[in-house]
Amino acid sequence: MTNQAVRLPKVGITLGDPCGIGPEVLVKAWHSGQLHSICEPVLIGSCAVMREAARLCGFDMKVRAVERAMPDGERGTLDVIEPVDFDINQIRYGEDLAYAGWAVGAWLEHADLLARQGALSASVMGPISSASLELAGALGSVATNKDGGAYLLLRSGPLMIAHLTDHVPLSAVSALITREGVLRLIRSVNAWMVDCGVTSRRIAIAGFNPHASGIEEQEQIAPAVAIACSEGIDVSGPFSPDTVFRHCIDGHYDIVLALYHDQGHIAMKTWGFSGNSVAMIGPPYVHTTVAHGVAYDLAGQGRADHTMMLNSILNAASLAAGQGFQA
Amino acid sequence: MTNQAVRLPKVGITLGDPCGIGPEVLVKAWHSGQLHSICEPVLIGSCAVMREAARLCGFDMKVRAVERAMPDGERGTLDVIEPVDFDINQIRYGEDLAYAGWAVGAWLEHADLLARQGALSASVMGPISSASLELAGALGSVATNKDGGAYLLLRSGPLMIAHLTDHVPLSAVSALITREGVLRLIRSVNAWMVDCGVTSRRIAIAGFNPHASGIEEQEQIAPAVAIACSEGIDVSGPFSPDTVFRHCIDGHYDIVLALYHDQGHIAMKTWGFSGNSVAMIGPPYVHTTVAHGVAYDLAGQGRADHTMMLNSILNAASLAAGQGFQA
Repeated sequence: MTNQAVRLPKVGITLGDPCGIGPEVLVKAWHSGQLHSICEPVLIGSCAVMREAARLCGFDMKVRAVERAMPDGERGTLDVIEPVDFDINQIRYGEDLAYAGWAVGAWLEHADLLARQGALSASVMGPISSASLELAGALGSVATNKDGGAYLLLRSGPLMIAHLTDHVPLSAVSALITREGVLRLIRSVNAWMVDCGVTSRRIAIAGFNPHASGIEEQEQIAPAVAIACSEGIDVSGPFSPDTVFRHCIDGHYDIVLALYHDQGHIAMKTWGFSGNSVAMIGPPYVHTTVAHGVAYDLAGQGRADHTMMLNSILNAASLAAGQGFQA
Repeated sequence: MTNQAVRLPKVGITLGDPCGIGPEVLVKAWHSGQLHSICEPVLIGSCAVMREAARLCGFDMKVRAVERAMPDGERGTLDVIEPVDFDINQIRYGEDLAYAGWAVGAWLEHADLLARQGALSASVMGPISSASLELAGALGSVATNKDGGAYLLLRSGPLMIAHLTDHVPLSAVSALITREGVLRLIRSVNAWMVDCGVTSRRIAIAGFNPHASGIEEQEQIAPAVAIACSEGIDVSGPFSPDTVFRHCIDGHYDIVLALYHDQGHIAMKTWGFSGNSVAMIGPPYVHTTVAHGVAYDLAGQGRADHTMMLNSILNAASLAAGQGFQA
């Protein structure tokens, strides 16, 4: 019998691209011993890939095929759900392969299914290769590309950013800045923070034009902010895009809403990479991933740093438990 | 007889908006004693305004009306060229005034004239108010708005950025990214660095779209880079906009060319304000200014920090002497 009071969130973790560093950083995160005290983790991917990754990292670990997150899991045994057969001989470290893209798509779809069924309360995505997914026609399996989409949230220390649009040509963004769309973003971000136990929720929204002085600000963004304020949401702006991120770092806000990919990503990556964590707002469960990619130049060597992967899992568990960010 | 070998560059400095902190920070920069060893500075504005600014800062300084930069200038005497009569009683600290805008426009035009005539080898612009200039219909006196325009260059430590476009609605930028325009920017920036004695000139250009993956990159930017490379210019890109600024900070490049205002300004201001200096590439003489504005909330109190103003003057002198950046 499980004691309800100490029940830990079940966190499913997809391996990411098997030709990249995903399996290795997952082995290291699992082996750190920090996972099982705050969640019941389970990997979704391939037993053979994880066995090889443990060998590459120099760890003597067991691999156990399971059907679900297990209450008796432990750091010495990698628990893996295998939704599809996977032939490890097809792997070529450092290469984009349709076969790898196909597998990643299947693993992501299975994690999404389990989470929607309630068998997982959070899902973590290992680093993927968009090129592999594209080769396999499986880009649609990524949360940001699913129906209804998802907002990408980046966080590093005091700087937290959610994005209205993602991989869209910049010349097409203006037309996507609508009152309804901006209002949906504000409401979604606020509701997500409430659900996840993020207690300080001072939201700032960036403008679109230099000094936030243009038609998009006047006709779309400002009216959406006014409506959200009237609903009791603590949101202000639109602010000049060039200073609002610095003001967040300096503690004036808890999160900045950015209107396009590079508006947020330039701020985050220029300020500093380390500690970055990533979440998707949109799926009906907690969904996190890493800020780094597949790092093909490092893959297969057991040398990749697992800090971001570990933080993503710790945050997924903590957010799913309604306790805000952990790392 | 002046000894040619030790001849110092003549640097004209416009006061900026007299209702802002410009006159005060100029008094402090002049009083620092750091100017006369590297240039022959002269202020372009109003004797009365500078006399009052010295009083606000608590300095016992003389004010001397002059016609040109003087070889016998010294830190205890503010040398001021007055191109137009100015009534100091019209000043209201902290306010945008058409009268102030008119004067600023006249001072800027006179500095430009002297520099084009060769009476100055560099011009430094004190902090202006666009609103005041607009009230006076004098926005056209600012270098970036003149015929042929000027490229804004920001610099703070290892991060240096020049901008293809400035205060343009973001939705209008795509159409301004032409092969010819990008090539002109690359050539101008490189030639400016050669002229000013900036010896390391590894130029990177940012892309326009997420991950530099779009039509502007393929059809306009990449071909312009190829032509510039064939001319012997050390330029590379287009690179993903979200990482190229961090790579510049990390020492991989000396300057990044940004395609729009916030692409560069978000990177610069999120990374850090301090030490920022600003130059305009375009005028046929060295032209620098400050990264800060008129700071109306501080104006008239003698408390404003003059570090950026001092750095702008030191850089103008050093660049005009062909010795690269000084500060």
